[in-house]
Amino acid sequence: MDHDGKRTPLRVTVWGENVHERRDDSVRAIYPDGMHTAIAAGLEELLGDRVRVRIATLQEPEHGLTQDVLDDTDVLTWWGHAAHGEVQDAVVDRVQAAVLGGMGLLVLHSGHESKLFQRLLGTSCSLRWRNDGERELVWTVDPAHPIAAGVPHPIVIDAHEMYGEHFDIPAPDELVFVSSFAGGEVFRGGCCFRRGAGQIFYFSPGDQDYPIYHHPDVQRVIANAVRWAAPGPGAPRAVPGSPEAPHGWFERGGA
Amino acid sequence: MDHDGKRTPLRVTVWGENVHERRDDSVRAIYPDGMHTAIAAGLEELLGDRVRVRIATLQEPEHGLTQDVLDDTDVLTWWGHAAHGEVQDAVVDRVQAAVLGGMGLLVLHSGHESKLFQRLLGTSCSLRWRNDGERELVWTVDPAHPIAAGVPHPIVIDAHEMYGEHFDIPAPDELVFVSSFAGGEVFRGGCCFRRGAGQIFYFSPGDQDYPIYHHPDVQRVIANAVRWAAPGPGAPRAVPGSPEAPHGWFERGGA
Amino acid sequence: MDHDGKRTPLRVTVWGENVHERRDDSVRAIYPDGMHTAIAAGLEELLGDRVRVRIATLQEPEHGLTQDVLDDTDVLTWWGHAAHGEVQDAVVDRVQAAVLGGMGLLVLHSGHESKLFQRLLGTSCSLRWRNDGERELVWTVDPAHPIAAGVPHPIVIDAHEMYGEHFDIPAPDELVFVSSFAGGEVFRGGCCFRRGAGQIFYFSPGDQDYPIYHHPDVQRVIANAVRWAAPGPGAPRAVPGSPEAPHGWFERGGA
Amino acid sequence: MDHDGKRTPLRVTVWGENVHERRDDSVRAIYPDGMHTAIAAGLEELLGDRVRVRIATLQEPEHGLTQDVLDDTDVLTWWGHAAHGEVQDAVVDRVQAAVLGGMGLLVLHSGHESKLFQRLLGTSCSLRWRNDGERELVWTVDPAHPIAAGVPHPIVIDAHEMYGEHFDIPAPDELVFVSSFAGGEVFRGGCCFRRGAGQIFYFSPGDQDYPIYHHPDVQRVIANAVRWAAPGPGAPRAVPGSPEAPHGWFERGGA
Repeated sequence: MDHDGKRTPLRVTVWGENVHERRDDSVRAIYPDGMHTAIAAGLEELLGDRVRVRIATLQEPEHGLTQDVLDDTDVLTWWGHAAHGEVQDAVVDRVQAAVLGGMGLLVLHSGHESKLFQRLLGTSCSLRWRNDGERELVWTVDPAHPIAAGVPHPIVIDAHEMYGEHFDIPAPDELVFVSSFAGGEVFRGGCCFRRGAGQIFYFSPGDQDYPIYHHPDVQRVIANAVRWAAPGPGAPRAVPGSPEAPHGWFERGGA
Repeated sequence: MDHDGKRTPLRVTVWGENVHERRDDSVRAIYPDGMHTAIAAGLEELLGDRVRVRIATLQEPEHGLTQDVLDDTDVLTWWGHAAHGEVQDAVVDRVQAAVLGGMGLLVLHSGHESKLFQRLLGTSCSLRWRNDGERELVWTVDPAHPIAAGVPHPIVIDAHEMYGEHFDIPAPDELVFVSSFAGGEVFRGGCCFRRGAGQIFYFSPGDQDYPIYHHPDVQRVIANAVRWAAPGPGAPRAVPGSPEAPHGWFERGGA
Repeated sequence: MDHDGKRTPLRVTVWGENVHERRDDSVRAIYPDGMHTAIAAGLEELLGDRVRVRIATLQEPEHGLTQDVLDDTDVLTWWGHAAHGEVQDAVVDRVQAAVLGGMGLLVLHSGHESKLFQRLLGTSCSLRWRNDGERELVWTVDPAHPIAAGVPHPIVIDAHEMYGEHFDIPAPDELVFVSSFAGGEVFRGGCCFRRGAGQIFYFSPGDQDYPIYHHPDVQRVIANAVRWAAPGPGAPRAVPGSPEAPHGWFERGGA
Repeated sequence: MDHDGKRTPLRVTVWGENVHERRDDSVRAIYPDGMHTAIAAGLEELLGDRVRVRIATLQEPEHGLTQDVLDDTDVLTWWGHAAHGEVQDAVVDRVQAAVLGGMGLLVLHSGHESKLFQRLLGTSCSLRWRNDGERELVWTVDPAHPIAAGVPHPIVIDAHEMYGEHFDIPAPDELVFVSSFAGGEVFRGGCCFRRGAGQIFYFSPGDQDYPIYHHPDVQRVIANAVRWAAPGPGAPRAVPGSPEAPHGWFERGGA
């Protein structure tokens, strides 16, 4: 995963559902240009010319996620909440295939109940919640993990929605962060999954009612995760089929 | 997982696609009453009154897997190959929900490309293959695992179809067996996955062209896996939703 | 893991350091007969004739853990704090070998810094702590796990010592419980590890200054864990060497 | 893990037991300057100025692994076989601490039974073996893993010592390669472990009787693994203690 060596920028597509921002004044007050724009700006600020960021939203044809866009994307970030059901199954199929083929994926906050995340994990991805504006502390349980580099232990978020266990996910391949909330709940809010050739990171901070994506530590985690999730230079980028393999096929050169 | 304590038999449903057995003389010669019948007989022979085995097949209404049947099933075994596409999506949904709610699942051999397995794992589950009747050795890599109890190391299968890496699955939660084939390939053929409250075991031996389900060590593995996959006595049996949780809800008794 | 089938009781040895109980009046007020006695009583109350409990302490010859005792033990529980350094290396060697050979092990609370736990895990097992008598909530993150059967979510402990991340352990093979504390910290306080043929469970509740081992939910977790950690009926009970294996050795019967 | 960004070379120390090379003519014929020299040359050829390679051997004072050397090492590679018992415990302690503090470690072939590897993993690390010069095929089971980048599937090694299961290690955090041998055995020969802040890779090819370290694919794997195991730029490099943490300590800036 050495994009720096070649200095080819990582191609990031920030996907936003873009519903709350258009209908809720309270959300527009925090994110006048949409949450996706704030996420994109954080990446550009922290990663500079190491990334080239594009935005796509639900309202665009094919939700802005055509095959051409996906083929030109190293890492996709996904934020959705109010309109999970409006995402077309054909687009979910296409994005799932891209992830299995090696595209990195960041699923943010309420994206836990998106069709895409449920499809990739196979479980309900349900959880407990409470929107009371309480303090969240994000604790690092894997200090050497690259996604945790450069953030304080804990990250302090003064007011946020509570997400609590049980979070119905498969055991993560790597658990990076666990949050606690003022009300006492805990949540495995920073989880890595590997599916096919793709690396997936779920990160729970990011409710639309709070300025989470302006928080510098949250921005840092997302930037770290984009770099972590990016496919290596020679990564496959295709979902394998099930080929017949004649006896000794590998003696003629391997594959 | 203490069904013995109560002496209530485990309720097992053996699901068979039942296509090869009806159309291929060569398969009928090995399994005159169907592969499902051989699998069921092995369980009954090894587990006796610890199990109550039912059979269901693709050709029955709702493939024999109504909600009533699933509610009355502790562990489901799944063998399919020629007709994955004929399995109705509504039945796949229902079985997936049952697994997430705690029903155990054994996916056998070519079931790796069933809609059900792909749905639960989120990946393509593809592999390499070659049907040459070559020797397979099934090696135990976790000797203390209950699924490996009482089988030789290795299990020797004189002739079988080759399944080879790469097997496109998530990293298993527990890896129990790895096979080698005379042609040199290897395969992670005994894998445990936990999804929701359900325990899933994939076991690769079992091609329709070979008398694998008459092999005593294969029967032993399947019997062990049925017992391993069975839900515990107080298991939930329901897929959770995402409830709102008022501050301090657990102080009034927990849940 | 079917001891019930045979109705042979599980042989449990409760090991207690037995230092605080003898020198601190405050501890003796809570545990007049020692913490080990309270742990043993909880097991006997919940498991009845399914267990046969023996006690061993630091002050006995060989700390009460002779080879004969270990050979007669299915599961060992370990509580130590003030005298980790006094445990003889030869006894640590012997107990480690017994665990690798299949004996179950429960490491309790401050046992995290015992020589034995560090030896089996290979890391420092260090953590943050504060003894302020604050509320601990023990949340289940794996509701289908047998160790979590029958306990509320969360377990509420009104006053306890705080143990907080980062807990320097290898990623657990199964994570069952995560605690939060009134001060905001979190801790992976219920962790399963598999080492050799042995199953190990670490459980953080249990400081000597609080009546934790009289808490019915804590007793339930320990009883569940004893059953979970017990070796299966045909388990090996020996640490393997590295034998030379002539070509085709397994064709003459396997092993 | 972005050493390229800064263009500071990775500091690699190749440790060689250096016993076979000095006493066995047959080994000296393959490795006239020692196996360690061949390993170092492979790294320099493939990684060029991205690495600065140093050599240390058993025969030097403190086996060449003083604290100064370890402090100046990002990744250590370890090959030993005939003289595991001669490695001083104090040096093992020191190297273990360095790994837990973030130094990467590659354990090669017969290093599986070194004190160091056993210490870090907590198990016997035993296996089956046979030195018959048979073909080994090294299969990738995680094609997107950076350690597998650029190597054929499978790697073909025409003649090698057989290492077979059961390999008595904890379940690896990531399983990258599984080998098969002409005699039919399989072996988990490419395993990643995370211990403390350190990343450890075990790679089984490399017996002294065969020219394995001249094999270009083996060299590639070792070079990939060195880059994978290197600590990130801001990595801790110290084993944590167990500090007391006053209530609210993190409100004054975190840590």
